[in-house]
Amino acid sequence: MTRAVALRPNSEAIVDGETRLTYAQWGRRVRGLTAGLRSLGLRSGDVVASIGQNSFRHLECWVGIPAAGMVLNDLNYRLAVPELEFIVNDSGARALVADGAYLEVARQLKQRCPSLEYLVYFGTESTPEGWVAWDDLCAAKPLDDGHAELRAITADTLAAISYTGGTTGLPKGVMQSHGNLLANAKHMLIANPLLPTDRFIHAAPMFHAADAATTFALTFMGGAHVCIRGYEPELFGRTVEAERVTVALIVPTMINMLLNHPATPARDLSSWRLLMYGASPMPVEPLLKACSMLPCDFVQLYGMTEASPLVCSTQRTDNRDGARGIEPARSRLASCGQPVVGVEVEIRRHDGAVCRPREVGEVYVRGPNIMLGYWKRPEETAAALADDLWYRSGDVAWADEDGYLFVVDRAKDMIISGGENIYTSEVENAVFQHPAVLEVAVFGIPDKNFGEMVHAEVVIKPDTSVTADDIVAVCRKHIGGYKVPRSVAIRSEPLPKSGAGKILKRNLRDPYWKDKDRRVN
Amino acid sequence: MTRAVALRPNSEAIVDGETRLTYAQWGRRVRGLTAGLRSLGLRSGDVVASIGQNSFRHLECWVGIPAAGMVLNDLNYRLAVPELEFIVNDSGARALVADGAYLEVARQLKQRCPSLEYLVYFGTESTPEGWVAWDDLCAAKPLDDGHAELRAITADTLAAISYTGGTTGLPKGVMQSHGNLLANAKHMLIANPLLPTDRFIHAAPMFHAADAATTFALTFMGGAHVCIRGYEPELFGRTVEAERVTVALIVPTMINMLLNHPATPARDLSSWRLLMYGASPMPVEPLLKACSMLPCDFVQLYGMTEASPLVCSTQRTDNRDGARGIEPARSRLASCGQPVVGVEVEIRRHDGAVCRPREVGEVYVRGPNIMLGYWKRPEETAAALADDLWYRSGDVAWADEDGYLFVVDRAKDMIISGGENIYTSEVENAVFQHPAVLEVAVFGIPDKNFGEMVHAEVVIKPDTSVTADDIVAVCRKHIGGYKVPRSVAIRSEPLPKSGAGKILKRNLRDPYWKDKDRRVN
Repeated sequence: MTRAVALRPNSEAIVDGETRLTYAQWGRRVRGLTAGLRSLGLRSGDVVASIGQNSFRHLECWVGIPAAGMVLNDLNYRLAVPELEFIVNDSGARALVADGAYLEVARQLKQRCPSLEYLVYFGTESTPEGWVAWDDLCAAKPLDDGHAELRAITADTLAAISYTGGTTGLPKGVMQSHGNLLANAKHMLIANPLLPTDRFIHAAPMFHAADAATTFALTFMGGAHVCIRGYEPELFGRTVEAERVTVALIVPTMINMLLNHPATPARDLSSWRLLMYGASPMPVEPLLKACSMLPCDFVQLYGMTEASPLVCSTQRTDNRDGARGIEPARSRLASCGQPVVGVEVEIRRHDGAVCRPREVGEVYVRGPNIMLGYWKRPEETAAALADDLWYRSGDVAWADEDGYLFVVDRAKDMIISGGENIYTSEVENAVFQHPAVLEVAVFGIPDKNFGEMVHAEVVIKPDTSVTADDIVAVCRKHIGGYKVPRSVAIRSEPLPKSGAGKILKRNLRDPYWKDKDRRVN
Repeated sequence: MTRAVALRPNSEAIVDGETRLTYAQWGRRVRGLTAGLRSLGLRSGDVVASIGQNSFRHLECWVGIPAAGMVLNDLNYRLAVPELEFIVNDSGARALVADGAYLEVARQLKQRCPSLEYLVYFGTESTPEGWVAWDDLCAAKPLDDGHAELRAITADTLAAISYTGGTTGLPKGVMQSHGNLLANAKHMLIANPLLPTDRFIHAAPMFHAADAATTFALTFMGGAHVCIRGYEPELFGRTVEAERVTVALIVPTMINMLLNHPATPARDLSSWRLLMYGASPMPVEPLLKACSMLPCDFVQLYGMTEASPLVCSTQRTDNRDGARGIEPARSRLASCGQPVVGVEVEIRRHDGAVCRPREVGEVYVRGPNIMLGYWKRPEETAAALADDLWYRSGDVAWADEDGYLFVVDRAKDMIISGGENIYTSEVENAVFQHPAVLEVAVFGIPDKNFGEMVHAEVVIKPDTSVTADDIVAVCRKHIGGYKVPRSVAIRSEPLPKSGAGKILKRNLRDPYWKDKDRRVN
């Protein structure tokens, strides 16, 4: 932020509806927070929670709360109040910042969470009675840069507690330091250079690592942050067109929705030079369709909140060459790329030995981007960072001879049927070979003979008609018989998704496993 | 190194005469050093000195000695034996690695420096009697990655002690940590992306920060290191042509020599995409000539050993646009660029306040690349890092509204004449407007009326004829009268230069100031 304010003071920093701010203007607001937050009685190290749709004020939480020496706890707004209550009580936040869509949620949390002392309103309407106005905090006269509390901030200072585990178990707070977030920003810039002239659209939810991944990198370069309240395919396409957006980072389900939206083909999206996607693997068929429909380069990222988040990236030429059928890029369309500069990856066997190329094992990650640990969870921290500073990810993957990583599953999603390991992403890729398939989730369900049986939950496109047998027939052509779904459910309603747009397999799978034991990985 | 070995094992890592090594082969040698150096009795934290021309084995010192947990003290081979003796005694090196050109120097140092226990030969001939062979150390079976001494290496571990001060006072050992060198590598890659397909020529001396600046960055990407024994314009041009070199980092005097070499115009240098230059400012006239003669983009860097070294960089479009006369790039041809991502710069007044745009002050630098301090020099360390972790550079500069930095002088080179500050780079730029000028150094000499008087030492091109009056006349057209040299010496022999190719103004100036007091900055 300091860099952009100094080097590009008159460049556009923020576009958010009618609001347009230069870096000089935005920097002035963010610096105001150093004193504004303190005027409430908050001090360095205090946790400030936030909940809201995407907005430039939401971005200010990410940039300004850590810059003030405090700790951001940005909440997943798709969670229910009892889940949020658990998280806020766990983080011990003293203040909660909320926008107009979450006023009632915030009020309930204030009643239920004893640590919460202040409600701060960062929406666009007038500030409710009894709430503090975010804009007033931003308008405070900033602390001097030489202030002892600001000078005490180092690379190891805690910047954010980001809760994960929406798809499995109780949420855990990932402790991200200033050093973690800045290391990630540099890794992003080396892997996928952003330019001072770039215009990035914040479409994925800001509370999620997939969006936060680029926030500091783009701010370093002094590019423009274009904010939309959330991902909707029509709003997204319209904004890319109107604001001449150049870069986006979204998840595969969002790309899918964009491609299938009727307004997309007529849009002028020619400004769009780079689409980064991640958070879950993109099956090859939709990827090839996207490459042919959109004007930009495609880069797949792989990461996790614990890695702040970037771990791997493909190169810009990979998907382009792959879509043209050029090898080895063609075979790497399903790869999430190579470890980025600054981050080390090892794939290890159960016994801890490093796997050979093409041997499947668990992904371990090391680098200055790896979290400090889980907030108040010494046991989980020790389990995740057991081996020195290698983070044990729980992802199952293999790498080719050049280190291109292929994530085949979450360890806990992998199906073991009749003693064979079946990686659900492989089965999903096969199902997608049927042209009428819109979404698919594959998971294991109980089987008295084989332990688990492969099940596919398939959403088909409107005005198409597909049977379970059709799906099975397509799969038979592409994968080994033991991997072909034994059970297929055709449905028309969308699959349940997490805040980041990941398909929530747990929600689909749990009913099948009710009252059954299932192995714990 | 680990990254390149894993991701690009079969790519060319080294080209050095007849020697060609892949990353797998080179990595095997470098990993051998972890055990090979220990086989001599050396331990983590021990200092290993080296002296030699450029070679791939010299690069192995940079990459392998720190990787083994030891500390490299790479010596400036242009120093005299008593100067080297001072440095080796100061660093306390236990071993000295030398090539064929420095056998006798090494033997003398061994006699004079009690800490030196081993002489190691890393030349291309057979190993002298009583010396250890570098290649034997590289052939040792590597320590296991999990070895406690290797695992003990952190970002704060000392990697190198690099002596500076060749142009002023006693040499001081700049302590560079692993974290410093890796931070610099990332800053380089963000500012000027290197590609896995790049072929970088090591032409500037490897002991100097100007060459070491890119070593780790290129190795991260898995590009090829093309080594020549040292800079000679014919050898340089021939190697760029033969090896299809894509990137070079040299100093302005080297560019000048290349442009003036008769073989250059006929060379096919079309592979060359990027020329980074630094270590001293490049006057605008030779720069414009270079832009017209060479096929590559020009990027000016600014840095210092204490910053490991990168601080500022221009953008690739700056010089291209500037050479075409496009503003504001035209006015920035003499700028060394903006602070790179990861590094903060402040220009401060004497009273410590930050200067306004275009106000001249002293350059302060902060970032993860700033040295740990000066080896065994607590007072100098405290003076240089007095203000928190801001490094006080001693350079005098101003910045424009967009943060483009213009270094006008070393604080100690600035001339004060009749109470006016005169920046020697500005006068040198004016002198260069005369087409017959090959080299120039401007400095202050004693004057009984004004304290100091502007003096220019001018080297003219062969077969030209220029008088002092001609030089004065050109300067009168371009700079204010009080800045015009009062005294001009025309000479035909080259100006004295440091190991890095910087003009040694001290050597030129000292005779004039013998027996005179001169203010100390």
